Amino acid sequence: MQVFGRDYRTIFPVDDGRAVAVIDQTRLPFEFVLRELGTVEQAATAIRDMVVRGAPLIGVTAAWGVALAMREDPTDAALRAALDLLVATRPTAVNLRWALERMEATLRPGPLASRAALAATEAGRIAEEDVAACAAIGRYGRPVLERVAERRGGQPVRVLTHCNAGWLACVDWGTALAPVYAAHDAGVPLHVWVDETRPRNQGAALTAFELGAHGVPHAVVTDNAGGHLMQRGEVDAVIVGSDRTTAAGDVANKIGTYLKALAARDNGVPFYAALPTSTIDWNIADGVRDVPIEERPSREVTHVAGRGGDGRIAEVEVVAPGSPVANPAFDVTPARLVTGIITERGVATASRSGLLALYPERAGAA
Amino acid sequence: MQVFGRDYRTIFPVDDGRAVAVIDQTRLPFEFVLRELGTVEQAATAIRDMVVRGAPLIGVTAAWGVALAMREDPTDAALRAALDLLVATRPTAVNLRWALERMEATLRPGPLASRAALAATEAGRIAEEDVAACAAIGRYGRPVLERVAERRGGQPVRVLTHCNAGWLACVDWGTALAPVYAAHDAGVPLHVWVDETRPRNQGAALTAFELGAHGVPHAVVTDNAGGHLMQRGEVDAVIVGSDRTTAAGDVANKIGTYLKALAARDNGVPFYAALPTSTIDWNIADGVRDVPIEERPSREVTHVAGRGGDGRIAEVEVVAPGSPVANPAFDVTPARLVTGIITERGVATASRSGLLALYPERAGAA
Repeated sequence: MQVFGRDYRTIFPVDDGRAVAVIDQTRLPFEFVLRELGTVEQAATAIRDMVVRGAPLIGVTAAWGVALAMREDPTDAALRAALDLLVATRPTAVNLRWALERMEATLRPGPLASRAALAATEAGRIAEEDVAACAAIGRYGRPVLERVAERRGGQPVRVLTHCNAGWLACVDWGTALAPVYAAHDAGVPLHVWVDETRPRNQGAALTAFELGAHGVPHAVVTDNAGGHLMQRGEVDAVIVGSDRTTAAGDVANKIGTYLKALAARDNGVPFYAALPTSTIDWNIADGVRDVPIEERPSREVTHVAGRGGDGRIAEVEVVAPGSPVANPAFDVTPARLVTGIITERGVATASRSGLLALYPERAGAA
Repeated sequence: MQVFGRDYRTIFPVDDGRAVAVIDQTRLPFEFVLRELGTVEQAATAIRDMVVRGAPLIGVTAAWGVALAMREDPTDAALRAALDLLVATRPTAVNLRWALERMEATLRPGPLASRAALAATEAGRIAEEDVAACAAIGRYGRPVLERVAERRGGQPVRVLTHCNAGWLACVDWGTALAPVYAAHDAGVPLHVWVDETRPRNQGAALTAFELGAHGVPHAVVTDNAGGHLMQRGEVDAVIVGSDRTTAAGDVANKIGTYLKALAARDNGVPFYAALPTSTIDWNIADGVRDVPIEERPSREVTHVAGRGGDGRIAEVEVVAPGSPVANPAFDVTPARLVTGIITERGVATASRSGLLALYPERAGAA
């Protein structure tokens, strides 16, 4: 996607594969800074500190982290250590685990001498597959918005989204925003309500940034506003991403998604989750019971980062001093609240049978 | 209530009635600053800029504003100007209008010479009635929490609240928090989940501050977290305040309240609104259709105020530059989602008949 008139991806190899460059997403939207990751430790830190974030991008960054480790030391012990280090960075994102398992399966049988090259090739392949998957999600999701557009008779289709599941969360295009970009590029008039997405404000900072850069009309609202907007008939569809989706269609996503799904149902607004296949966890069905929810540091709630009066990135403290804080990072939207799941294979109803219609090879899943 | 070991109210006359003192709530929780309001213009500005906020306190401040105006000029023209100035400060809070109508009804028939004294007496009376009403809300709400406590068998009763409907929103005690304080003071073990309440963070700043000052166990969470907490069985009751409640029991309150009510219903958690009678608007029934929702400045969303690294109150910008913002300040929770309405007369079911059982004299209302 375009930034300042140049095409970027969120992660790409540099210096002949000795490092990967990423966009430092903790500096957006005020500073556009590329950062080089030259070691597996740097890759792990970038994931943990959310320099990179978004389930697909986390998976690709982890794959590159393994490749960087193999360049340094291709032994089984180093491979094991890299996998263990990376898998522990974020507990909820299932395609972090998926990407690491794929790297392990690819590298384990190969000769040590070729592991570094094999790892770089495989990491690159995972990235390309992600780009292709996001593009396909856009192609399948676009008609969903086009059908709403027909009902709207030329008025903008008003889409609400939560957090950032745009190209900044992936390698390119995005998941939840892929249908938005595809529809926008096809001339469908759109207006996107962007949830701020506390505590880290990925909506206000990242989604608003990338929609603005691409020229998609939008407005930022607090996380509290979506129910009111739906109640007043100002939202035509909700599209969110997912960090993990169960075999039964339960959607784990950024904390607060479940509240928007409840409001969507209460007001007859269709609610879609758009996600690559790698996000589906076929081993679990009941998301509320079985998806582990990451508890993140309380400082994310007590302090808000942004641009200060002097133009520099700064933090202010917003919670009464001494007050304890809880900071669950994700919640689970039960399948019953989900109108459809958009993947690179098509649009499924959010149920075991709906998903199996797209993924018949998974008929033996949990 | 106590601050730094001293008893305070949120508003009180000083200097022999030539001014009123208020706690500057824009400086909390980091600075405890009293500010004197000496003119009706200062009172209006204090309301508009949210130096004072919370429906009951807004009403009392407006009443004192009229008294300050009458001190300066007791004519009908000055009275009219004061009422017009004050009523325009905040469009949603119904007891702003109620307090002003009461002041007008009291002052209009009286001789000009006694208007200043009459106005001060009436403003003081409104304040005392608010204190008494909040205390009564606490007495009626306490058994609600005590019944939950019995089911919890000694474990803390986990209450979720949104925004600040504590004593800082009133003159003393609070509305939503009055039952919490009453139960806490009676020895009921409690834990309060405090919604941050973007965009102005009244939960994180004010509710957390006053609960901490009173020694009530609590934790601050983002506005996004409540659904997840309820889904995981970690909330026993929701209690919120109200800026306007319709004759049918629809509850207008701080933006985001509706989302919590939806989550409460989805998880079988009782949802209460606690409010003084002055908050009830008997002239309307359908809140979603008929309660005007204030749209506040976009800067409240684009900028977050807090304590900077140097200890001073500062603002940081959190929205991508150039992105538009919408900032509706309230939403309406339909009566069907409300378990009960706690007023100074008792606990009513959220319906016309439920409210009329407490207010039989209103049988002719809309």
